[in-house]
Amino acid sequence: MTGADLTPATMLTAMRRERPLVHCITNYVAMNIAANVVLAAGASPAMVHAEAEAGEFAAIAGALTVNIGTLSPDWVKGMRAAATAAAATGRPWVLDPVAHHATAFRREATAGLLALSPTIVRGNASEIIALAGAASRGQGVDSRDSVAAAEDAARALAAGHGAVVAVTGATDFVTDGTRAVRIDGGSPLMPQVTALGCSLTCVVGAFAAAFPRAPFEAAVAALTLFAVAGERAAAGAHGPGSFGWRFLDALAAVDGAALDAEARVAQA
Amino acid sequence: MTGADLTPATMLTAMRRERPLVHCITNYVAMNIAANVVLAAGASPAMVHAEAEAGEFAAIAGALTVNIGTLSPDWVKGMRAAATAAAATGRPWVLDPVAHHATAFRREATAGLLALSPTIVRGNASEIIALAGAASRGQGVDSRDSVAAAEDAARALAAGHGAVVAVTGATDFVTDGTRAVRIDGGSPLMPQVTALGCSLTCVVGAFAAAFPRAPFEAAVAALTLFAVAGERAAAGAHGPGSFGWRFLDALAAVDGAALDAEARVAQA
Amino acid sequence: MTGADLTPATMLTAMRRERPLVHCITNYVAMNIAANVVLAAGASPAMVHAEAEAGEFAAIAGALTVNIGTLSPDWVKGMRAAATAAAATGRPWVLDPVAHHATAFRREATAGLLALSPTIVRGNASEIIALAGAASRGQGVDSRDSVAAAEDAARALAAGHGAVVAVTGATDFVTDGTRAVRIDGGSPLMPQVTALGCSLTCVVGAFAAAFPRAPFEAAVAALTLFAVAGERAAAGAHGPGSFGWRFLDALAAVDGAALDAEARVAQA
Repeated sequence: MTGADLTPATMLTAMRRERPLVHCITNYVAMNIAANVVLAAGASPAMVHAEAEAGEFAAIAGALTVNIGTLSPDWVKGMRAAATAAAATGRPWVLDPVAHHATAFRREATAGLLALSPTIVRGNASEIIALAGAASRGQGVDSRDSVAAAEDAARALAAGHGAVVAVTGATDFVTDGTRAVRIDGGSPLMPQVTALGCSLTCVVGAFAAAFPRAPFEAAVAALTLFAVAGERAAAGAHGPGSFGWRFLDALAAVDGAALDAEARVAQA
Repeated sequence: MTGADLTPATMLTAMRRERPLVHCITNYVAMNIAANVVLAAGASPAMVHAEAEAGEFAAIAGALTVNIGTLSPDWVKGMRAAATAAAATGRPWVLDPVAHHATAFRREATAGLLALSPTIVRGNASEIIALAGAASRGQGVDSRDSVAAAEDAARALAAGHGAVVAVTGATDFVTDGTRAVRIDGGSPLMPQVTALGCSLTCVVGAFAAAFPRAPFEAAVAALTLFAVAGERAAAGAHGPGSFGWRFLDALAAVDGAALDAEARVAQA
Repeated sequence: MTGADLTPATMLTAMRRERPLVHCITNYVAMNIAANVVLAAGASPAMVHAEAEAGEFAAIAGALTVNIGTLSPDWVKGMRAAATAAAATGRPWVLDPVAHHATAFRREATAGLLALSPTIVRGNASEIIALAGAASRGQGVDSRDSVAAAEDAARALAAGHGAVVAVTGATDFVTDGTRAVRIDGGSPLMPQVTALGCSLTCVVGAFAAAFPRAPFEAAVAALTLFAVAGERAAAGAHGPGSFGWRFLDALAAVDGAALDAEARVAQA
């Protein structure tokens, strides 16, 4: 494929054909739903976290995702071992810095992981704003807790770290520091289901595994798949419970043609 | 609000308006469903367990809940750090002593946590009976494994520890050692879905966070919300699977008016 | 019951009447769904993993199941303590060697567990083939990654270790080294829902707890229950999400008469 061919639709089809192995280190809340989401998206998840094997395993998988949701010192060691091995073997890895600004332990762990050069960073607006603020030590990052501030923070973070940055919310935003897009869709029910954002991080890893040299397009494809599936799942849902299983059905049912017809991606 | 205004209905509306942050240390089985239940109830859950940050985080959240379901020594340290910080900063905390009488490790961990003065204790009949027995070293607690024995045990435990005690079952019972109520509702399908009791403990924490000086009313409100939502979810369910997601839908849909109309709470 | 009476149908009825306590040490992904599956099957699950109590608890429960999905050194200690206690007190225990051949850490942990004489081993074809290969150090085990190779490997493993071996897939295979059966049923949606295989391991434990001297029949009964429930759940499912909750409903609804009517078990 050439760059112009890398649409969410063509990438979904290609990713499913390859069915990449995604090494997910994620939190206890997300473990089950993230594995189900990755399966429904069409990839193969593996949850492997211990320092004793995380590095060895990261070199087997197609991509690594690291989410710090339910953190402990032993897990930080496993995350660092895996991220180091992913970087050393040229595999993309995705960082999801959940609530990284809440405690000193979390701030230190995140700084250590950020230093290992994640290929992609995914977070919500407040996480990306805080991360850009911490990274720039206050060098001009707007502190407005708003969509515009999050987009500015994402651009600054991307430029400063050479990473693709994805901010998810009612409208998603993805940038590599130069290019940027906004993605609409999804449903207000999505934040009412726990760990869907964490699960999305694993799907970003699935696309990055299939397209290791196109992390910007990979992030856009993953977020677009979520937005389209979320919009479909909301039709017929009567609350977070009925949305949850409908979302898995929708993720599995959405194909390239559906993405072409229903995606709402715009240059930013 | 004055004390007379603290009905489950008014408290639900007020709790949802505040959307308190609930620090939940719970077991691996319950992690996901408890987070989804707290979201559907209208509060904001955060699962943070490591000793490295649990104390710091407990001082940020509105309330703490501690459930010993899948215990290990490292987690006991985190639980103690969090409970100590909650108590030191005047935050309510809820203890859920799952199967505390099954092993020596569990008995010791529970004794240590009970000494940190939980605001509320929630358990099933056998857990509360065993806890009262352990606490009183056999001073007159009836050993009959029955509803009456559980209510006696709850009263003894509440009086002895200055805690609100909630016993959940087909009929729930809540006491602060002086006042006591029984709550009917729910469904026989509820114990067929794992960790709904553990999730309820987190919802008790949500109400306690919103009403830190009214733990008795907070526990009653949480149990009443569960009873009404459980009864609604059972209509249309054909087994534990279809009950599970209907329960989340029902939790999110129940509002103050529904609680007023459908709650079955009686003085005991 | 005599041996001839040990059909899946009679065993299901007897197991539910006894409602055995099953000590499950399983992975973080499987924790919740495995507990729900065991409840729906009709037994009582308990997740207890720490070395500090796993041995004591294994001697209380009716059977133990050990799954190495999300492994760490502390958990290996708990698994070994539990398996040692189960063996010492004459309780059946079931080993589920998830991806045991992926890393050195996993291979060593599995070798150590296998040396503790599991009563039953359950895995997918590639896991059983690799396990037989490792156990025999290449003594004639066919390396074809195929159904026939898996059946050969299961027979070799069973004969070599005195264990019942169950290989699950589109068609399941169970052998004790002498007898062997194949079980048809289920649905292609089953591998699209994460951790159903891990959950099945816990149900094998439930039947083994009720029939500790008939591990071959216990494994056959558990796999047959899954196959019938999976086939029923697939009717009406539109993807992995709607299959998931329908499977729990079906597990709870299937009774002895349904097993008699719908089971497809054949001598191999």
